[in-house]
Amino acid sequence: MSLLVVGTVAFDKIETPYGKTDKILGGAGTYIGLAASHLTDDVKIVSVVGGDFPQKYLDLLKSHNVDIQGIKVIPDGKTFFWAGKYHENINNRDTLATELNVLADFNPVLPESYKNARYVMLGNLTPAIQQSVIEQMNTRPELICMDTMNFWMDSAWDDLLKVITMVDVLTINDEEARQLSGEYSLVKAARKILTMGPRYLIVKKGEHGALLFYKDEIFYAPAMPLEHVCDPTGAGDTFAGGFMGYLAKTQDKSFANMKKALVYASAMASFTVEKFGTQKLTELNSILIKQRLNDFEKLVSFKI
Amino acid sequence: MSLLVVGTVAFDKIETPYGKTDKILGGAGTYIGLAASHLTDDVKIVSVVGGDFPQKYLDLLKSHNVDIQGIKVIPDGKTFFWAGKYHENINNRDTLATELNVLADFNPVLPESYKNARYVMLGNLTPAIQQSVIEQMNTRPELICMDTMNFWMDSAWDDLLKVITMVDVLTINDEEARQLSGEYSLVKAARKILTMGPRYLIVKKGEHGALLFYKDEIFYAPAMPLEHVCDPTGAGDTFAGGFMGYLAKTQDKSFANMKKALVYASAMASFTVEKFGTQKLTELNSILIKQRLNDFEKLVSFKI
Repeated sequence: MSLLVVGTVAFDKIETPYGKTDKILGGAGTYIGLAASHLTDDVKIVSVVGGDFPQKYLDLLKSHNVDIQGIKVIPDGKTFFWAGKYHENINNRDTLATELNVLADFNPVLPESYKNARYVMLGNLTPAIQQSVIEQMNTRPELICMDTMNFWMDSAWDDLLKVITMVDVLTINDEEARQLSGEYSLVKAARKILTMGPRYLIVKKGEHGALLFYKDEIFYAPAMPLEHVCDPTGAGDTFAGGFMGYLAKTQDKSFANMKKALVYASAMASFTVEKFGTQKLTELNSILIKQRLNDFEKLVSFKI
Repeated sequence: MSLLVVGTVAFDKIETPYGKTDKILGGAGTYIGLAASHLTDDVKIVSVVGGDFPQKYLDLLKSHNVDIQGIKVIPDGKTFFWAGKYHENINNRDTLATELNVLADFNPVLPESYKNARYVMLGNLTPAIQQSVIEQMNTRPELICMDTMNFWMDSAWDDLLKVITMVDVLTINDEEARQLSGEYSLVKAARKILTMGPRYLIVKKGEHGALLFYKDEIFYAPAMPLEHVCDPTGAGDTFAGGFMGYLAKTQDKSFANMKKALVYASAMASFTVEKFGTQKLTELNSILIKQRLNDFEKLVSFKI
């Protein structure tokens, strides 16, 4: 089933204790799309890049069966660029540069063929843009998942509250769940957020895993303890791509299947962080993914 | 099977965003003993208190079938006292007072009836004291578990390294695992620590759960997401008490049973934090424990 992804396609320049990169392929839309492409066939990206964006990156997305006709190229513009440096505690990072460039005027226009997608993943962007994408759909998709961040809570509160009433699943991190709800306990925070629009809330906790809240149910997917975390960039987006890719493939929105989707999400994210940028995502295959899923099953299985 | 517990029996004075206490019953030995007493019959504590320690607290331990003949009372001395204040982020706390009092000269002497215990839980204490307890045993216990902390890594490194060669299970938190091993990745840290003596390593991550490492196996037990965390004091000690209490009861040191023990540990700790001090531990019964274990099973169970 088709999955529409809205998110940045961009350049990243990354430094971690384990090395640094030049300008490489990055962006939420890229990570979401590549991750989802390993799980489902029909992934369509809406985004914008500048004339400086290399054809080889577009070809890479195409080679993963990602539909890129929704990626607008602005020949005179420059592609969104982010540079960051991670510390020894790899969960802490400094942003060294953020150049919005063509993203500053991003006004996504969906190609006709995108407007009937049944699954939609709204990557972290201005709430108004997320809303505009929903409003361009011909019919209400079966499932809309939305990522956001504290920045929009600080700068676009009303727009954010409006768009979250239009989605089914919200993914945020633990601090953002606290900020959005005003509750410290994640259980209380979730209960409140689930009255604000979404039927499902995913709270991402990075290396500490993720929680899925639905009605009075809670499911927890751990993060895989890894030998080596090279670069956390894109982990949260990969997580979202894995989650929605699996749901788009299985077309099963039961809570039991949502739980599986959360484990797929965590598995995909565990790959991304093992190498710089999107490298690992481009090297994956179904055997590696299956092995990692088995590792997850082993990691948490016990019998009382 | 008998479980010998060595640890402080003390006064705590606690302030959290949800209230504050007077001087109440606290101490690692107390939490370990009470937690274990819900899972196994024969728990013996070695500790020291002053003449100011109320008989009612000793009676409380006795009423939970905890053998207290190893708790030495020094009539002229004062009981160990700790005061602390937790912040809104309940994982952060300031220590307001630490009065060692009778603990300063604590030199545990095991009663004869303690020296054949088959399971031993060494609560967080000076490594030399932990070693002295092991050396007083008549025969090598089946399983010795040891808790420690960064303070001893900073102040008693050589003693610590020596005593950890004498134990089977080491429990520390994630930062301590990094400090002890010099490795940031917990997987690498565990591999190194498992060459330093213990066959099992438990890495406690507070509200983010706990990891059990054994050979090349990793098992993860989450913490229960709770409606209300009132007071985290004693959570790690309760965890250790739940772990060893379950193992002492079942007398099964297989990895499969160790995994179950870790879930029991996490379940017991999830109770402790719901009320101030040892309050919740004294109110528990087997039905509540069973329900909580079922909640844990639900929290992480999925089928790939």
